[in-house]
Amino acid sequence: MSRPKARKPKGFRDAFSETAVARRNMLATICDVYRRYGFQPLETSAVEYVDALGKYLPESDQPDAGIFAFQDDLDEQWVALRYDLTAPLARVVAEHPELPKPFRRYQYGPVYRREIKPGKDRFREFYQCDFDTVGCDSMAADAEVCDVLAAAMRALGLDEFVIRVNNRKILNGLLDSLELADAGQRLAVLRTLDKLDDIGINGLEAQLGEGRLDKSGSFNAGVGLSAAAIDRLTGFLQSREDDRERTCDALFERVKESESGREGIQELREINELLDVVGLSSELVRFDPSLVRGLEYYTGPVFEIELPFTIKVKGKQKKFGSVSGGGRYDYLVERFTGQKVPATGASIGVDRLLAALEHLGRVDATGTDGPVVVTVMDTERRVEYQRMVQQLREAGIAAEMYLGSGGFKAQMKYADKRRAPIVVIAGSDEFERGEVTLKDMDLGAKLATEISDNEQWRKGQPAQITVHRDELVAQVTAILSRQ
Amino acid sequence: MSRPKARKPKGFRDAFSETAVARRNMLATICDVYRRYGFQPLETSAVEYVDALGKYLPESDQPDAGIFAFQDDLDEQWVALRYDLTAPLARVVAEHPELPKPFRRYQYGPVYRREIKPGKDRFREFYQCDFDTVGCDSMAADAEVCDVLAAAMRALGLDEFVIRVNNRKILNGLLDSLELADAGQRLAVLRTLDKLDDIGINGLEAQLGEGRLDKSGSFNAGVGLSAAAIDRLTGFLQSREDDRERTCDALFERVKESESGREGIQELREINELLDVVGLSSELVRFDPSLVRGLEYYTGPVFEIELPFTIKVKGKQKKFGSVSGGGRYDYLVERFTGQKVPATGASIGVDRLLAALEHLGRVDATGTDGPVVVTVMDTERRVEYQRMVQQLREAGIAAEMYLGSGGFKAQMKYADKRRAPIVVIAGSDEFERGEVTLKDMDLGAKLATEISDNEQWRKGQPAQITVHRDELVAQVTAILSRQ
Repeated sequence: MSRPKARKPKGFRDAFSETAVARRNMLATICDVYRRYGFQPLETSAVEYVDALGKYLPESDQPDAGIFAFQDDLDEQWVALRYDLTAPLARVVAEHPELPKPFRRYQYGPVYRREIKPGKDRFREFYQCDFDTVGCDSMAADAEVCDVLAAAMRALGLDEFVIRVNNRKILNGLLDSLELADAGQRLAVLRTLDKLDDIGINGLEAQLGEGRLDKSGSFNAGVGLSAAAIDRLTGFLQSREDDRERTCDALFERVKESESGREGIQELREINELLDVVGLSSELVRFDPSLVRGLEYYTGPVFEIELPFTIKVKGKQKKFGSVSGGGRYDYLVERFTGQKVPATGASIGVDRLLAALEHLGRVDATGTDGPVVVTVMDTERRVEYQRMVQQLREAGIAAEMYLGSGGFKAQMKYADKRRAPIVVIAGSDEFERGEVTLKDMDLGAKLATEISDNEQWRKGQPAQITVHRDELVAQVTAILSRQ
Repeated sequence: MSRPKARKPKGFRDAFSETAVARRNMLATICDVYRRYGFQPLETSAVEYVDALGKYLPESDQPDAGIFAFQDDLDEQWVALRYDLTAPLARVVAEHPELPKPFRRYQYGPVYRREIKPGKDRFREFYQCDFDTVGCDSMAADAEVCDVLAAAMRALGLDEFVIRVNNRKILNGLLDSLELADAGQRLAVLRTLDKLDDIGINGLEAQLGEGRLDKSGSFNAGVGLSAAAIDRLTGFLQSREDDRERTCDALFERVKESESGREGIQELREINELLDVVGLSSELVRFDPSLVRGLEYYTGPVFEIELPFTIKVKGKQKKFGSVSGGGRYDYLVERFTGQKVPATGASIGVDRLLAALEHLGRVDATGTDGPVVVTVMDTERRVEYQRMVQQLREAGIAAEMYLGSGGFKAQMKYADKRRAPIVVIAGSDEFERGEVTLKDMDLGAKLATEISDNEQWRKGQPAQITVHRDELVAQVTAILSRQ
């Protein structure tokens, strides 16, 4: 008989208790910030019509544009797993004209991308947590995006982060002045600019021109711009000043000939004023002309949160990089309805941010403990163990009677694996005296590592106490609150 | 230019704020019960290999056995959206032999089924919330399933429910004694028995025999059993007594010739004893020989929660029916590994249960209110409105400044649609006097309906108060806590 192999498809993951709880805690903190800012939850289906999603991923040259698509058997139309939470939001708003405008919603959940090379840090299923304001063209909504992101980072205990802001209109203004061949070349330039962090300024110059050899030694054809155009682009990218206002002035000089460019600068100036009101400094929220963002649907301000610490990847220190991105997308709803419905928002990359919190030792692990385990010393006494468990549960304490078939040693090992905070032990001696023994697993672990050669440790079980049976719940509660 | 139509695929839904919050509240209550019983969270991927999921749905005769399957581009193997949370759990346990045994996890999330006729009450994406004990053959785990389900129902404020329990082994024992032609006929009998609630005892008799005309007038071929066999089956189905022990006695008489039957009865007797210990009466947890459950993977006790009230469907009163099902599935892990890993658990149908709570007026709507809306009476004062909002948010109160472009009337309408509990109003008069006006939207709505012809209502705005600007947060807090 052939047996299936127990495995999951490449690029997909399971989250066990600790990760699942840490992710939930993190999401609860973020969503509470979203709520305070007036966003309300929305949950959309994971499956959408392909034409409703649109094709906006940077991977648009890949098969199925980087999405998981299949044919619906009911109407033979193509459906796909959502690749983000923004395209479905636009579909919802267009489908429901009765919704209040501005429509302010938040949403979290898994999204799906057909990564060609899934692996560490590249997954085919990952969590996003978005908030958006739909039906508002005021830069107040874009400034608020920065405010919300900063509040979310702070609520998670992160102080070191930079919110980078740019405006597609400025980039577009610059590209207008370069007289590019067509929309294809334009997109190729944008995509190349987006790679600055990966390939550096020299790599970028080569890639914008004739092309370059990549790490594997194969030649990447370049965009084919003239040296003058490349100069203008790289000059633009590097014209960031420490101060937001001065950055606006510097950029203005570079794009003032273009209407789109001037408009983009004006929008940044408005955002700057509003950021000053809420006290977000130029160090925290930085106007950065080198920020591009890969998604094609952005039309105005774009945002990114960068965490400035480095991590080791294949032996090299590398910037941890972005944990959130967003921007204004004024045409996503109009695509459906023909009506102008401007919108802006951002998405937090939940799994990347959780990885950052883990790296920084800032994970909120509340609730990762296992249950109190009531051991079964005497199977004839099951009913009495069951009553203990019931009393603990009634007091809101997570508890279970050992349901396996192992002896005492196996039960202690089980309790340990389950991260039980306390083990309850009652054998015939205890029952005779009307007592139970409680083993404090936390203290036990500490004693075992810290003072294993201690006199007290050697002579007894300092992490165990024996209490009256009637005191079970009170004593367990006391130990738990001490832990 | 052709525009895509804003729509979602058939059988898929969006959950707007109220539903999303109500569902979350309900899940939080259920999961807290699971936690108290010692289950810990697990989250698995939505996409699995088809061979790892196995084909256990009642719809096994449908194309792709009722699942959404497509080919993975990386290895050309077939993958599918999970159709439940049990098959993925078995995969996880088989993939991770290092997990503690018993492995006790809970999980909630969407599952996907290719319903042929999606519609009201039949969806292609719906939520389940499961708990399972894997690696335990003791009936204590099965009795605990009933205990957990009862605790979850009570935690949600439901008192009227029946947990029906049967045992596949007893059914199998009965079928053994009928000398059926083959496994196909056996499965056909099981599936027919499962339809008792829909077609009644007469319809069942016909369907087990020659067949019957269905509602649409077309003929359904029957299973082709003899009259004697049909008699034995229907007699068996109806041999339920009010008392669990007496039901065991009655069933014993009908299957005592079969080893599997005797074993099944013995298991029910063990469960009965344990249910007595935790105080679950025969009315609440009922042994019911007519319970089948559609999923093929069950091997022992099976469970179902029935809500006994009726609802109107197409003009007819109909039992609301099942909101949860489960059972023992001792071979799901063994399928992969060849090692015996017995398991049991149950799944709550989240969306069905939420519909039941809605019907009974028992939804926990905590948190469905919108934000406090600070209206913009004077666009020159945006900075000051922004400060008000900021102060409210810092106090943990959900608040936003109106970001749309409408006048006062539009802003009030917006606040109403957003279910804002309070609207903050400050025009030039208020600013001059250093005051703000707060409109209590809850009280306003009440007054408008209850005492619309009241003297006070006609002459003023009884739901509005004007307070000192410095008192904004304190007064908003006071009104919110009154509401």
